Amino acid sequence: MQKLIAVIGGSSCSPEDYLLAEKVGRLLAKKDIGIICGGMSGVMEAVCKGAHEAGGITIGILPGNDPADANQYVAIPIVTGMGISRNIIIVRSADACIAISGKYGTLSEIAYALQLGKPVITLNSWNEIPGTTPSSSAEDAVNLAISIIQNEKRW
Amino acid sequence: MQKLIAVIGGSSCSPEDYLLAEKVGRLLAKKDIGIICGGMSGVMEAVCKGAHEAGGITIGILPGNDPADANQYVAIPIVTGMGISRNIIIVRSADACIAISGKYGTLSEIAYALQLGKPVITLNSWNEIPGTTPSSSAEDAVNLAISIIQNEKRW
Amino acid sequence: MQKLIAVIGGSSCSPEDYLLAEKVGRLLAKKDIGIICGGMSGVMEAVCKGAHEAGGITIGILPGNDPADANQYVAIPIVTGMGISRNIIIVRSADACIAISGKYGTLSEIAYALQLGKPVITLNSWNEIPGTTPSSSAEDAVNLAISIIQNEKRW
Amino acid sequence: MQKLIAVIGGSSCSPEDYLLAEKVGRLLAKKDIGIICGGMSGVMEAVCKGAHEAGGITIGILPGNDPADANQYVAIPIVTGMGISRNIIIVRSADACIAISGKYGTLSEIAYALQLGKPVITLNSWNEIPGTTPSSSAEDAVNLAISIIQNEKRW
Repeated sequence: MQKLIAVIGGSSCSPEDYLLAEKVGRLLAKKDIGIICGGMSGVMEAVCKGAHEAGGITIGILPGNDPADANQYVAIPIVTGMGISRNIIIVRSADACIAISGKYGTLSEIAYALQLGKPVITLNSWNEIPGTTPSSSAEDAVNLAISIIQNEKRW
Repeated sequence: MQKLIAVIGGSSCSPEDYLLAEKVGRLLAKKDIGIICGGMSGVMEAVCKGAHEAGGITIGILPGNDPADANQYVAIPIVTGMGISRNIIIVRSADACIAISGKYGTLSEIAYALQLGKPVITLNSWNEIPGTTPSSSAEDAVNLAISIIQNEKRW
Repeated sequence: MQKLIAVIGGSSCSPEDYLLAEKVGRLLAKKDIGIICGGMSGVMEAVCKGAHEAGGITIGILPGNDPADANQYVAIPIVTGMGISRNIIIVRSADACIAISGKYGTLSEIAYALQLGKPVITLNSWNEIPGTTPSSSAEDAVNLAISIIQNEKRW
Repeated sequence: MQKLIAVIGGSSCSPEDYLLAEKVGRLLAKKDIGIICGGMSGVMEAVCKGAHEAGGITIGILPGNDPADANQYVAIPIVTGMGISRNIIIVRSADACIAISGKYGTLSEIAYALQLGKPVITLNSWNEIPGTTPSSSAEDAVNLAISIIQNEKRW
């Protein structure tokens, strides 16, 4: 079964956060970990770009009705037609989450992940939410996520 | 069209928060505002109890498959079978939200409400989330919610 | 707890089916049974019109994001934002279903209702689906639905 | 973007239908088409087994909360926690559907697929539903599905 980490964050982001997300994607792909995300623009596009270019698997859980809504680096678009109700599917399907920047949509995903008992690593994101594990760089976020989930039952 | 306010909070709560929620329900019912909530125990039960006993409408958006899961004060159980994916339906259907205590499930609802542009009044809850409007008592919460939505297009 | 019957059918319908649905709504309201439906136009509007004008409760489980999408006879709009994924919520929340005309969307609701073990009365609809109970008039449909659910545990 | 065909059918099935589904999975995998299905037992397991053993991609859109619910041939479990509300996601994400036997759950998926304008090939399934394309063998079903979608915009 494919190991999956959810990378969550805003559909628009700063150039710095785009580069961070792209690096997170590349590092996860090199560890043979698949990316699951919302499949759209911003952080979602960046992490898929990084993973795709490093040969990794990218899954986009799309809010809309059309697979063509996915960013160009999504290999497997899952088309929910459920709008932002699909947020929970992203985190439920993942072994852990890395949150990069993001606003309220990202906060809903962080909240769901914590409710479901999933590890949540934050990187320039909602670090102040109790239960999250802040990180200081793309490498740090990926290493933290991997070290936490290696002790989980599913691995 | 029935005016609805979502009252969100944990399925378990302190006796003090139970009384707060019950009072909120009673006050809203007296203003002819319907309650929409998750329909289960704790804060959800308390707010339905207060509203029901004051003659108000109570709607429970249930996570499970059985209307009998609803607390006894829910008049209209909506049975989603979607688990906590149903959280967003509660806030989407409301003109405003009042959050009373609660943990990560409540936080997911607050996040969704803020993303959707709904007013969120907090009462002994996640006051520190930017965009929420903290309140100091049941009366204060109800008055704030009503005053905010009276300026909205739907009223 | 409010007794609810789902009335399902197309968002466009013939004038004859509109009158049938309106009559079904009126008859159910007179029996103090609430209507739950998709909340939009066609059969959904007709059944809400009939029920509303006879003093009944009308609940619309809306596919979109805006309560204003509901037809004018919906008293309680539940706003799912989930598109046609919301179909199952309509039938899950009901004690029985009455299907009036309709196409594939209605068929998805009939299929779900039968899978969930709910009685499905058809009226000028998908009568050929095994497990449905065909009816010959609005009165017949309402009487059949009521007689079937009066033997169910929930009543 | 990965081409996907939904294979839908019952969670229990006859040994003959199991072999049919397994063959459909094998044939699709050899054409480099990914399988998307409900991820559980019966027809869903059989099609994943056939595809997996032929080196294909298998995606399971799970109703429950745990990736371990998936049959052992699912490579990518998407964990919805939404129960049978997840049915529509299976067909929305596919270019075409092949239905093998199945009861009301399968009928809900066929209905949704037809509503969404997706080709539906039936194999020993709900052939009598207008709009479906009946097939006579695993080879016939796969060839029909491929020939239909090769004329679609997404290919």
